[in-house]
Amino acid sequence: MPFRSVLKFGTVLRVLSFLLIFESIFMLSGVFVAWYYNEPFYYILLSFLITAFVGVALWYFFGREKKTSIGKREGYLIVSLAWVVISLFGSLPYLISGAIPSFTDAFFETISGFTTTGASILSEIEALPKTILYWRAMTHWIGGMGIIVLTVAILPFLGVGGMQLLVAEMPGITPDRLHPRVTATAKRLWGIYVLLTIAEVLLLWAGEMDLFDSVCHAFATMATGGFSTKNDSIAGFAPYSQYIIMLFMTLAGINFTLHYLALHRKFTKIWENQEFKTYISIIVVIGLLITFGLVFFMDTGIEEAFRNAMFTVISILTTTGFVTADYYVWPVFLWILIFALMFIGGSAGSTGGGMKIVRHLLLIKNSWLELKRALHPNAIILVKFNGKAVSQNIIFNVMAFFLIYVTIFAFGTILLSLMGYDFETSAGGAIASLGNIGPGIGGVGPIENYGFFSMPAKWLLSFLMLLGRLELFTILIVLTPAFWKQ
Amino acid sequence: MPFRSVLKFGTVLRVLSFLLIFESIFMLSGVFVAWYYNEPFYYILLSFLITAFVGVALWYFFGREKKTSIGKREGYLIVSLAWVVISLFGSLPYLISGAIPSFTDAFFETISGFTTTGASILSEIEALPKTILYWRAMTHWIGGMGIIVLTVAILPFLGVGGMQLLVAEMPGITPDRLHPRVTATAKRLWGIYVLLTIAEVLLLWAGEMDLFDSVCHAFATMATGGFSTKNDSIAGFAPYSQYIIMLFMTLAGINFTLHYLALHRKFTKIWENQEFKTYISIIVVIGLLITFGLVFFMDTGIEEAFRNAMFTVISILTTTGFVTADYYVWPVFLWILIFALMFIGGSAGSTGGGMKIVRHLLLIKNSWLELKRALHPNAIILVKFNGKAVSQNIIFNVMAFFLIYVTIFAFGTILLSLMGYDFETSAGGAIASLGNIGPGIGGVGPIENYGFFSMPAKWLLSFLMLLGRLELFTILIVLTPAFWKQ
Repeated sequence: MPFRSVLKFGTVLRVLSFLLIFESIFMLSGVFVAWYYNEPFYYILLSFLITAFVGVALWYFFGREKKTSIGKREGYLIVSLAWVVISLFGSLPYLISGAIPSFTDAFFETISGFTTTGASILSEIEALPKTILYWRAMTHWIGGMGIIVLTVAILPFLGVGGMQLLVAEMPGITPDRLHPRVTATAKRLWGIYVLLTIAEVLLLWAGEMDLFDSVCHAFATMATGGFSTKNDSIAGFAPYSQYIIMLFMTLAGINFTLHYLALHRKFTKIWENQEFKTYISIIVVIGLLITFGLVFFMDTGIEEAFRNAMFTVISILTTTGFVTADYYVWPVFLWILIFALMFIGGSAGSTGGGMKIVRHLLLIKNSWLELKRALHPNAIILVKFNGKAVSQNIIFNVMAFFLIYVTIFAFGTILLSLMGYDFETSAGGAIASLGNIGPGIGGVGPIENYGFFSMPAKWLLSFLMLLGRLELFTILIVLTPAFWKQ
Repeated sequence: MPFRSVLKFGTVLRVLSFLLIFESIFMLSGVFVAWYYNEPFYYILLSFLITAFVGVALWYFFGREKKTSIGKREGYLIVSLAWVVISLFGSLPYLISGAIPSFTDAFFETISGFTTTGASILSEIEALPKTILYWRAMTHWIGGMGIIVLTVAILPFLGVGGMQLLVAEMPGITPDRLHPRVTATAKRLWGIYVLLTIAEVLLLWAGEMDLFDSVCHAFATMATGGFSTKNDSIAGFAPYSQYIIMLFMTLAGINFTLHYLALHRKFTKIWENQEFKTYISIIVVIGLLITFGLVFFMDTGIEEAFRNAMFTVISILTTTGFVTADYYVWPVFLWILIFALMFIGGSAGSTGGGMKIVRHLLLIKNSWLELKRALHPNAIILVKFNGKAVSQNIIFNVMAFFLIYVTIFAFGTILLSLMGYDFETSAGGAIASLGNIGPGIGGVGPIENYGFFSMPAKWLLSFLMLLGRLELFTILIVLTPAFWKQ
């Protein structure tokens, strides 16, 4: 019974100290950006110093303890605290520079970055210093790195929401304990992440974007974040840049273990992956449906319709949230499809958020089998995924995930409407935050921002982003009294 | 394996023949209404003759077969066909009289009656003959009778959506086969239904309503239907009548086996029933919340605010759909609570529709335990309901029910928006039909009607009413190819 054991706070703080030191190094890179563009760099340097100091101090007190293995209980706590702690320190550049003077706003923008949501409270993005824009994109990129390790290594180990299914596909992870080879796995996947980012930077730079915009947009794309350096997101860029971003959003929404398989030329295994097939099918089918809709009902030219439809579908499905067209002014029957995509999300093991395609697949298969089970009450009928039987425990877990997700969405919507926002803004804000998407519908539609929300609403939305990003259970378990009983 | 046996169509037709004869007798009562009020009675007499003739003819060919016990497979088919067949014949009075000339409209109105939905395509209700209004209310009342037998006897036997839980509480039903004592159980519960209806008629008649209005409203109340004889539903009646209807809506939304226990003075057993306690708590808490909201934000007088708030909450929660106030003009944060109630529904074993409170209770309890299960992965932790452990199979079934329900709601909303209706009308129409409520939000708000929908939309909504009323599985199972394999 690992949970009866004493919670090792020292271990938790040791890991957090590493994260802060890690974060401070990324901040340091911002100092070079400021220097290169001749901008003041005191605030990014100060942020680096504070973060590094706290990180080193924590490490000094807890880091040199005898290395003990991390138990499940510490795992839950580390994951829950990690995003909060790095968001607290990550908001320093906004606060010290005065770019975002309010603490609530700065924290909102930072956690929106680290959770790769991309919901912004800023309206005048182009007026900001390049250093701030760089740090803003960087929060996405760091968040994306975190998510890759989280979903393919830590969550399966914690047994959260069916993520155990991922374990079977990845060498170096055992469901029982955090294997030392997890570090090797993480490094391999990070390598892919870095490579894809570099490839996107180069391809964007080859177009009309300068190096700075290319880097920032590549960071935001690969993390499926959505912060742009432009007020009108991607709409002002040439079709070439839009197609490149589409391609890399699609890649970022794929399970990274599949990229790993691709590097090893195991293409049949990729093509047999049911989540991958479903992912591609959704993009093609919904994308073409909306293309036809735009051509026939909005009189858009075919290429533009295709580009805007595909871009929007990919951007929302992968939960990136980049925008080339204001889908909220499309006829209802077109934007309602986009709204529906918000409830699906990317692939498990990708940087995408949302409920994830694999969960929907398992639930659809199970619902269908439940009808068969009624006809044959004594037969044991198991769901199959990628050719293997899935245990009832995992299905149970996934069903509970779906239920809690829908319930949190409903409560989020009701709470926002209680704070005085209209129905579509409340529903849109709740799902766009919980699903880590960014743009929603209504007052948070594709060309709007989150600046108008009240302080309590911003904290609620920040909490939803965190819940969604950490797959609900991690946070909720830490919030149960049972967790704290020794 | 009862499902490998040959489907006995004869048995199915025999039961349907009884239902038609049963229905025709109720039509005959309409002839007396027409005679009493000096209205033309040719159409109701003709409807009676046609229905009775078909019923007797079917009985002649199939009714005299050797009586065989009804298997599960026949059970699914009988339940699925029953509501469709009686709705087909039940639309005859509207069609022959010309009160509703279109077949689609007449069928919509009839199935809305029999499923106790109460969604109407009529705008000028007061202009209709009394005989038509009587038949319209009668479809509710017959539907309510059907639902009582269905939920406490047939669905538990078919193992649908956790309804097996009801079996434990009722004498005379075994989960294995339709016990002969089911007839006795049904008669007992029908007795309670008739008694409560008579009590309501008398109490309404004691107020300002005449006998005709009292009967029609009592029929619609006890069935949690919602068809009124007035254009403005219950709004024009005195507070006395409104409070009486509130009381009886509340009673109709309670599991009828609890009424049976009340008759036998087993009050502790009622008070220990968790679904009952939750039901009353929801009414009190949400009712008072909305009362305060109306007093402070709409400047309504306290008594009127209390009355309108409580009436609306009870009417929507029980899925009756009577209206005293246009809740859609209230501030969003008030009507969104009403919208949320539409997803809850009445108690299992009542005449109310929706997902049912017991299912939500089980799901909430299970979600909570799922967090505990993550902490203690090796422990077997079961959900308890009314002090007894609930099998994992039932929880599984209830989760699948929730998932399919939400999916059907989402698809219904998307399909309606594809037909050109706005977001709130589509979502409101879908849930108000699937939940058998009647009034929704948007274009189907409390003071609107369903007349404006296109023909395909009306058929879609009729199908949703049927699906919701028969607890999804029954219909869906009959629609699977596996069902038809011999």
